[in-house]
Amino acid sequence: MCTKTISILDSTLRDGAQGKGISFSVEDKLQIVQLLDRVGVSIIEAGNPGSNPKELAFFERAEALKLENAVLASFGSTCRKGCAPEDDRNLQALLDCGTEVCVVFGKCWRFHVDHVLETTEEENLRMIRESVRYLREKGRRVIFDAEHFFDGYIGDSGFAMRAVEAAVMGGAEMICLCDTNGGVFPEDVTRIVKHVAKTLPVPVSVHFHDDCGMAVANSVVAVEAGAVQVQGTFLGFGERCGNANLSAIIPNLQIKRGYSCIPQENIEMFTHFARELAAITNLEIPSGLPYVGSHAFAHKAGMHADGVLKTARSFEHVDPFLVGNKRKFPTSEISGRAVVFARIRQILPELTVHSVETQRILEEIKRLEMTGYEFEGADASFELLVRRRMGLYKPFFELKYYKIFSGAGEREDAGASAIVKVGVGEEIKLMAAEGNGPVNALDTALRKALGLFYPVLNRMKLMDYKVRVLDGGSATASHVRVLITSTDGESTFTTVGVSSDVVDASFRALQDSIEYLLLKSHALNHAAEPVS
Amino acid sequence: MCTKTISILDSTLRDGAQGKGISFSVEDKLQIVQLLDRVGVSIIEAGNPGSNPKELAFFERAEALKLENAVLASFGSTCRKGCAPEDDRNLQALLDCGTEVCVVFGKCWRFHVDHVLETTEEENLRMIRESVRYLREKGRRVIFDAEHFFDGYIGDSGFAMRAVEAAVMGGAEMICLCDTNGGVFPEDVTRIVKHVAKTLPVPVSVHFHDDCGMAVANSVVAVEAGAVQVQGTFLGFGERCGNANLSAIIPNLQIKRGYSCIPQENIEMFTHFARELAAITNLEIPSGLPYVGSHAFAHKAGMHADGVLKTARSFEHVDPFLVGNKRKFPTSEISGRAVVFARIRQILPELTVHSVETQRILEEIKRLEMTGYEFEGADASFELLVRRRMGLYKPFFELKYYKIFSGAGEREDAGASAIVKVGVGEEIKLMAAEGNGPVNALDTALRKALGLFYPVLNRMKLMDYKVRVLDGGSATASHVRVLITSTDGESTFTTVGVSSDVVDASFRALQDSIEYLLLKSHALNHAAEPVS
Repeated sequence: MCTKTISILDSTLRDGAQGKGISFSVEDKLQIVQLLDRVGVSIIEAGNPGSNPKELAFFERAEALKLENAVLASFGSTCRKGCAPEDDRNLQALLDCGTEVCVVFGKCWRFHVDHVLETTEEENLRMIRESVRYLREKGRRVIFDAEHFFDGYIGDSGFAMRAVEAAVMGGAEMICLCDTNGGVFPEDVTRIVKHVAKTLPVPVSVHFHDDCGMAVANSVVAVEAGAVQVQGTFLGFGERCGNANLSAIIPNLQIKRGYSCIPQENIEMFTHFARELAAITNLEIPSGLPYVGSHAFAHKAGMHADGVLKTARSFEHVDPFLVGNKRKFPTSEISGRAVVFARIRQILPELTVHSVETQRILEEIKRLEMTGYEFEGADASFELLVRRRMGLYKPFFELKYYKIFSGAGEREDAGASAIVKVGVGEEIKLMAAEGNGPVNALDTALRKALGLFYPVLNRMKLMDYKVRVLDGGSATASHVRVLITSTDGESTFTTVGVSSDVVDASFRALQDSIEYLLLKSHALNHAAEPVS
Repeated sequence: MCTKTISILDSTLRDGAQGKGISFSVEDKLQIVQLLDRVGVSIIEAGNPGSNPKELAFFERAEALKLENAVLASFGSTCRKGCAPEDDRNLQALLDCGTEVCVVFGKCWRFHVDHVLETTEEENLRMIRESVRYLREKGRRVIFDAEHFFDGYIGDSGFAMRAVEAAVMGGAEMICLCDTNGGVFPEDVTRIVKHVAKTLPVPVSVHFHDDCGMAVANSVVAVEAGAVQVQGTFLGFGERCGNANLSAIIPNLQIKRGYSCIPQENIEMFTHFARELAAITNLEIPSGLPYVGSHAFAHKAGMHADGVLKTARSFEHVDPFLVGNKRKFPTSEISGRAVVFARIRQILPELTVHSVETQRILEEIKRLEMTGYEFEGADASFELLVRRRMGLYKPFFELKYYKIFSGAGEREDAGASAIVKVGVGEEIKLMAAEGNGPVNALDTALRKALGLFYPVLNRMKLMDYKVRVLDGGSATASHVRVLITSTDGESTFTTVGVSSDVVDASFRALQDSIEYLLLKSHALNHAAEPVS
């Protein structure tokens, strides 16, 4: 263990913006800058003003933010070939956006200089040296991103070293060795970083891509070989297979190797930060993402769950609480009763494992699981089930019936429509709706009808809808399981329905989602009432 | 580069089954066994018969399959403490399932023996040695999975080494060093594997979990340190953060380091295999998954796209065609033609790549893919599409319309029913049917009506039915993709339908399945006629 400080450069707003399905608004970007500052990274690489002139407006607003931990960096290439720095549009854009740090990239692979840039080594070295020097003269701190450094070094180490030496001579404060194509192996990283760190008079940074699935490991071994900065993106967003995932690298280095990357107290908020970033970008965190995924500490195998209940360390490499995550025991056919009981206790702390009520609940769960229910991932339906079994639950509405109509063919009115008839107390409402398919029509009709009684439902939104066929063998007569994730704008929750009819399974999950939201907002209103 | 052979053990059906959202039917498992055999892995670890007695029925059917490349293995623990191997239920289950290879796991970490197993070192060593020996005496090949080996070695290397030596003494043909909790770092892997490989008289295997995001790199460095087998799961499914992802490890080793893991010609089908497995498990492949993700070779940054168009190597660590994947330029898709063309040629060998017809088919595929179609796992729909585009196809029937009715509530007739009206030549039939849900009712009505014209349809059975929601963001208004697998008792084939309405998507896939079977039996009847 050591206590060496490792600087973290987050590029979510620059390299991360090149990931699939990502498109940030200016508001998103400002929120992310503030979030990353709260995480405690050292440098936020916030954009490439030369490639997109709109960035200047963003940088103007970003510079007005008061940041506590991080400084902002802009990113761009060296001057073009045959061009003086002071005449170069890209370098001018870097200066215009006013960041304290400029990250400038240049070519270090002979192959690229020959075939993509199509110039001489001398001209390439001039471009690097003069660009860095120009920005230094204008008072900027400069990090030189040595593009394709590893490929370049493996192909012609002298060429690659001369390129980074030119940046040092220009006044770069740090040299970042980039694996731009994501193809380098850990043993080469160790060897090359060791040599460069020993040779250069300035500190070394690294930047990996995940095309071989080894970006996290490469970052870790690079630090152990002498790098003092890691560049990456907080959730691994980035071009192609993504950038090195900082949400794994930071805890790997800080919790397991004793380096200091971010303020220690922030590590405990780590999972929370990750979810906040996912929410801003409107992307789902993969459930198995190391440290911060919802399933990262889920013990599905019965033997593992038993081991963890005896002593957590037996099947956990770190304590999930250290990164603000939670241990989970998904209720599944391969998990034991102890696990299910632990979840019941979270809802009704007064129950004991041997009480008649507990047995009744466990039997009901077993019976439902036999018919295809699965409560792994469907916490809201699980809670409703427990409360219903205990007689602690009064439904908020009664379904009289629903009907759906759907078709295709010659007639224009052949699309889907639904009718629902519901009762709330003595009142009865009949409501119709059309939709993209029968489930959407049913969902709309149901919420239109119940929204008349419970305005909170107008805030409710369905976020995700998943269908799983359970017994493929009997094909279209199969049972299907539908999982629905909903939000009221604050929290999200998931419900489940099973039926041989996909519409009916969807209805059951919809019904639970509505009941659950009403239960929660009802409990909240009661809690807010003065105790008289 | 070297040409050393590395054995691949795939545990998708065992450790993979512990991943989030995974639940395999027996049919799924049999399909996966055959798929992994076609991929060319050496060993398929297919289940834990001791933990689930239903596995025996599966192993019986699996053993009847003719496999070309792989052998089956069953997985289970050593005998319990204080128990003789011949009296142990788990070992008996391993024998009963009849596989050539048994993978037996035992404890190598003193902490686990003390606090989870709660026995002495001597008893633990006996359990390992006698269990392995017993299975050897019964004629089985035995791989010993050294559970928690890395944690155990770091804590007390002597204890860990004595445990694996006991397995060697019992007659294990190979020792697998497991990082059960997923917390080990590459430099420790290198050091420990080197030592163990030098010390033991039998070959060494490795098994990593991805809790630190380093399972792929750990597998690669372990091979370079002397391991000759890698255990993992083909798409990285597994407990918590998943197992080592073989779809990255195999190309890393084979394409980039010259090891031989699977038959070379199969590497070119790699992406196709990955998508087939994803289709069977009804899970989406993450778009950025190395080598096989849909976005793994997508160049979103303009500068990268320009570089790749000049010379692909400039921003690609390997050629995507080597693994059967496609280069993509997300704004202007100009790729993948060679792969699609190869599939077209299988149907119409006379076409050339530049012919007008080929262009027309490629454009149609592109258009359909934009709306959510995917033909990877749906060969029958792909063939119909090609024939339809070429005017080589006359539909066997015409749908006039269908209507479905479905509901739930007070009335007894609230279940699902369907009406279809179809025309065959001049004749028109109207048919009604009831079913478990609208899709089943529609399927039944359609086949009842068309069976009057085409008796071969009475032999047809739907074997599998899968639904995938495409754009979860818009929830119940999402597009859905339905995959249907059918059989006529001899061959099986898969068709696809996409729509915003799950019933309509199902109808399209059903329609293709009927058309395809009629096309095939019609061609057969003609081939059987004497050429006059």
